[in-house]
Order: sequence, then structure tokens, then C-alpha cells
Amino acid sequence: MKIGLIGLGKMGYQIGLHLIDKGHEVHAYDINEQAVERFKTEGGDASVTVDSMLSQLPSPKVVWVMVPAGDVTTNVLKELAEKLSPEDVVIDAGNTNYKQTLEHISLLKEKGIHMLDVGTSGGVSGARNGACFMIGGDKEVFQPLEPVFRELAVDNGYLYTGKGGSGHFLKMVHNGIEYGMMAAIGEGFEVLEKSPFEYNYEEVARVWNHGSVIRGWLMELMQEAFKKDAHLDDIRGVMHSSGEGKWTVESALDFEVPTPVIALSLMMRYRSQENDTFTGKVVAALRHEFGGHAVEKK
Amino acid sequence: MKIGLIGLGKMGYQIGLHLIDKGHEVHAYDINEQAVERFKTEGGDASVTVDSMLSQLPSPKVVWVMVPAGDVTTNVLKELAEKLSPEDVVIDAGNTNYKQTLEHISLLKEKGIHMLDVGTSGGVSGARNGACFMIGGDKEVFQPLEPVFRELAVDNGYLYTGKGGSGHFLKMVHNGIEYGMMAAIGEGFEVLEKSPFEYNYEEVARVWNHGSVIRGWLMELMQEAFKKDAHLDDIRGVMHSSGEGKWTVESALDFEVPTPVIALSLMMRYRSQENDTFTGKVVAALRHEFGGHAVEKK
Repeated sequence: MKIGLIGLGKMGYQIGLHLIDKGHEVHAYDINEQAVERFKTEGGDASVTVDSMLSQLPSPKVVWVMVPAGDVTTNVLKELAEKLSPEDVVIDAGNTNYKQTLEHISLLKEKGIHMLDVGTSGGVSGARNGACFMIGGDKEVFQPLEPVFRELAVDNGYLYTGKGGSGHFLKMVHNGIEYGMMAAIGEGFEVLEKSPFEYNYEEVARVWNHGSVIRGWLMELMQEAFKKDAHLDDIRGVMHSSGEGKWTVESALDFEVPTPVIALSLMMRYRSQENDTFTGKVVAALRHEFGGHAVEKK
Repeated sequence: MKIGLIGLGKMGYQIGLHLIDKGHEVHAYDINEQAVERFKTEGGDASVTVDSMLSQLPSPKVVWVMVPAGDVTTNVLKELAEKLSPEDVVIDAGNTNYKQTLEHISLLKEKGIHMLDVGTSGGVSGARNGACFMIGGDKEVFQPLEPVFRELAVDNGYLYTGKGGSGHFLKMVHNGIEYGMMAAIGEGFEVLEKSPFEYNYEEVARVWNHGSVIRGWLMELMQEAFKKDAHLDDIRGVMHSSGEGKWTVESALDFEVPTPVIALSLMMRYRSQENDTFTGKVVAALRHEFGGHAVEKK
């Protein structure tokens, strides 16, 4: 089928190539001229204006949006709300906060435009070779597009999750779980690092990936990482985050669900971004005041 | 080869059958007569006395010990220290605390007896069909036995981890990581459960196992669990623990490693075992005292 694609960035570009592989006619839009030109050399059609891209699509149009979450996505969807027609379908396959997704759905619905909110997992290689999709929205809108998701997913790697917002919500929780799992893995390796034993971490990750309870993709990635850098000497332990962990904790607060492990994995990411903490100064000052304990001066 | 096996329980019995499959002559010992009789019907030799079992083994003897960690293991190893001879080899493949393992190694070493401390992951089906082994001890002791571990492990599923104690230590940390990962998974599903969306959890676990970042054995087990009981209605959320998570946190304290996620996953297991908490009473009482907030009376 003919599919519009907004966003030829890290993920969108790969989804575009993947769609082409599967025999679709992809009409892409991106403001980045280089990406547009490159995409054209790989069998796609691309343009630097939305109008030009949309003009290539038959009605009802289907537009796959894969741009950074937040204002960028909102602005794209607002523009599409102006330019699309009733019965057209927008697929937001980015990491939009589900509350914002609910607003986007309303905005588009006013114009009779449908939306599917699609959580995409599997990273860049997944986008190119087979991803995992969590798809929310009206079932009648999903069904005619199901073959496209089946083609782009790994076997068994897509799920219709229910009403609008449920796809992005599920992806958010997926990432929250990922935060906790990654923190546990990190802590475990730090215990090994400070233990009286000497382990080859690449070998440890390798053996844990073969028959152990904690085998999985994250441990496979650890094996790759330790293969490149046996003690991760070239990396600083600063853990950034892109929002989904925070939103999971916000949701836990909204619904009053105790999620100490996920919450703490998020807090430890924040901690890792500070060279020093005011918490630490306060506690050091208090220990000094009541017990005369030494403080470390700057 | 001829191998002695102490313990025909949940894990030991399966290891015994697995050894037989691989062409070894297994001489087992267990106090449980039923297990002994049953093992004999499956191609093994078994006895209810240690002496009788040991008398079947040529020197140097190799004895695989697979009994519950703690006093049971210590008593078995003390008995072996009395009854074995220099150059014999004891394999402790249970979940012994690594500090205790270091004591066991000393105890056996006094008599010239070697020991390998082997962490075994993969559960009962792993013991039967292919496990994951983390093997500590002297390399010269390990090497002649390497073929046995290779046979009992899944492909790539064994690792010589270095000096004595390092096998059990690594298995301990593996379990600590497992605690954190399991807690993160649990919390994530609880956020889904209390969300405004309705998910089919078996399907969620299924899609997360195909192409997502958090795919792995634990998520596969969740898929199985939700298949049997869609909302886990038949299970109480009481999480017991068998020591390895606690020891990981104790080690983190020993080495002063911050492991908040693993520590909290352990604490939440303890919390799950209480119907009410004294913490809760104290906080409720304080809120009542300073703010007149209602307390729930028994």
C-alpha cells in the first residue's frame, strides 16, 4: 500500500526502509534535506514539505509518524489535523506520553481523523529488521492495517492492546520495567566488581545467557558491551533517561501503586547525573553538627 | 565415569537422571528410601547409606552434592571430610552461602580433599535437560571434570569462574539480579492492573517476549503463568525467599556497594509476608497525634 511517513530520523528512516522491503510505496517527509535525498536513493519517495508528501497518497491516507515525543509530535499531529480529511489514519509510533496521546486522539477525532497509538520496542535494529509493536486505538481502524504491523514485527511481535492510549501506556510500562531490570543488572555487576573475586564480565554475561533464569536481551546486550570494553573503562556511569521511566512512576503515583524498585531505579539515574548532591552536603553537615564528624571540604 | 551423587531431591534426582543419560554410572545416596528405590528403576544405583555409595566409587572419587543449603550441606561435607581420601573431589552444586563455602573448602583441604563450588541455575527442568553452571575452585580440579559440566549444561552454559567461592558468589549475585528483575516485572504488571486500560496479560507477556527489550526467560515464565491463570486470581501475593537475595544485600553492605533496587526488592518480599506492619501502626499513630488524622482500628 501507499504509506506516508513523517520523520526520517534514527527510527523512522529504518521503518521506512523496512516498509519498502515489504513492498510498500513509502512517501516520506522530513525537514532534513540530506535524509530526504538519501531516502530517495534507497527506493523511497521523500520530500521536505508535508503537502508534497500528502499529495502522493490516495484517500483514505495512512500516515506513520515517527518523530521525537513531546512538542515535535504534537506539532506534527496539529498540522495533520489541519491537512488530513475524515477517515484518514495517523499512526503515532513514537514514545508519546499516553495522556498527551489522549489529547491528540481528541484533536484528530474532531476532524473525523483516526489515530493508532503504537509503542515500538526493539531499537534501531528492530525498526529495520523486526520490531515489537503495542497498538492502541479503535479496532476497526487497526484491522485493515494489521498486515502492515505483522510485516514490520518479528514473528508474534505485535499486539492490539485496546482503546486509544493503551498502546503508548503499555510501552511506557515496558520501559519502566526495563529501568528496574537494568538497575538490578547494574547493581549486580557492581557487587561482582567490588567482590574479592575476579570475573571476566563478558564470560559472566555469556554464561548467564545460556540456561540461567536471568537470560534475556538485556544480558545479551551486556555481553556485547563487555566484549567491546571488558571493564567499561571508556564509559562514565551517567544514566540519562528520556521520560518513560518518569511517566511510569507518575502513573504509579496517579493510581497509588507501590513501585519502589522502578521508582528507585529512576532516582538512581538522577543521582548519576549529579557530581555532588545537596542531600550529601545536608547529611554531612548534620553529622558534623551533632557528632563532630569530619566533613570533606571543597 | 563413575560419579557419586548425594541428594535425590528436586534438583539432585534430575541431575542424576541427566548424568545417566550422558552415559555416566551414578551411585546415589539419599535417606529417602522411596527416592532411592525409584532412582534404581531409572537406571541408577542408589543406597540409603553414604558408605555403601562411596564403596562403589573408584579413587579418586568424585561426589556431586546437591542437598539444601545450610546445615544439611555442612553436615554432608563434614561427613565427606571424614570419609573421603586425599585427591577425591567434592562438587557442592547447591546454593551455599559463599562464606560458608570458603569454610567448607578449608575443612576439606585439611584432608587433602578438593572441592568445586558450583552455582546451578535453570531450575528443575534445567537440571534434567540442560542447566547453567558457575564453577569455582582450583583450575586443575575443574579441568578433568569439565566434560561433565559441558554435558549437563545447555550449549555455552557453564563457566569456570576462578578461585574457590567464586562459583557460589556468582550464583548469589545472579539471584540478587533476579530479585530486582522480578520486582520490576511485578510492579509493571501492577501498574497495568490499576490503569484505566484492560490488558490481556498473557498476550502482553507474549508480545514483550517477541522483539522487545525486556524479553527473556522471566517474561516467558510470566506468559506461562498468565496462560494458566489470566489474573493470577488463585495466588496470594506473598513472596518468600530462600537466602540468596539477602546474601547479595549482605555482600553489598560488606563491600559498601549501593544496591537500592536489589535491597528494596528483598524488603518488599519481607513486606509481602506481613498482613499488617508495625511501621504502618507507628506512622498512622504519628499522623493521628500531630494531625488528628483518622486511624483504622482493629
